Amino acid sequence: MKLSEYWFPGRLRDLTRAECIDLLAERHVGRVAYCDETGPVVLPVNYVLDGDDVVIVTSPDSALALHLRSAAASFEIDEYDDYTLSGWSVLVRDSARYMGCEDMPLPSTRPHAWAEGQRNLYIRITTKEITGRRLLGS
Amino acid sequence: MKLSEYWFPGRLRDLTRAECIDLLAERHVGRVAYCDETGPVVLPVNYVLDGDDVVIVTSPDSALALHLRSAAASFEIDEYDDYTLSGWSVLVRDSARYMGCEDMPLPSTRPHAWAEGQRNLYIRITTKEITGRRLLGS
Repeated sequence: MKLSEYWFPGRLRDLTRAECIDLLAERHVGRVAYCDETGPVVLPVNYVLDGDDVVIVTSPDSALALHLRSAAASFEIDEYDDYTLSGWSVLVRDSARYMGCEDMPLPSTRPHAWAEGQRNLYIRITTKEITGRRLLGS
Repeated sequence: MKLSEYWFPGRLRDLTRAECIDLLAERHVGRVAYCDETGPVVLPVNYVLDGDDVVIVTSPDSALALHLRSAAASFEIDEYDDYTLSGWSVLVRDSARYMGCEDMPLPSTRPHAWAEGQRNLYIRITTKEITGRRLLGS
């Protein structure tokens, strides 16, 4: 018998906005989603939390740069545990736009891209709507 | 000095379709993306790989059920390591549709939902396009 067959299903609990912000502040990798001409796309990116906004960094010639000049976007982080069948996720929904010099975070607090290449385009995803859920193992 | 400032940026390498399929077959949690009336959404789900397709399970009254009756969708899995600044991701793009009895996987190979509730709606995401990348730490 598999573990999933004799453990009880987990209970879902909504996270507060403050809990979501705390989780966003602790991480460095998330996933940004956007819509291109054929549908939705979701890609992992490095990010930092700047106030309540998510700031991501990418290359000026990337698909992200092409589609997030000024567009609806969402951003997700999560963590889960295959053994306890538990986890949590946070979803940010609003819009993305290129950042200019006037609203750039200080160099010490900018996101750092793990990948090589010229990644110097910063994109701000505002966080009008933040929701999160935690799945508690039984 | 932070680790990220003295380690060299990682090299990105494309994964083959076979590597992507192998990674999809090993996991049980991924993220599905769809577009609703205000933009893209990305949510974690339990899944299994059925042939080359991704099969997810959800509740009939969920947002996923509302938007994935027959729609463009994408599905993503990834893993990364904060210490070595390395990781990989796989992206599936095509369309989603409700599964009927005629194309349901056998009970032993259906995705198992970790969360409580009546989660008995199975949705198939076909995998016309599968791409993946690995970021190798330096």
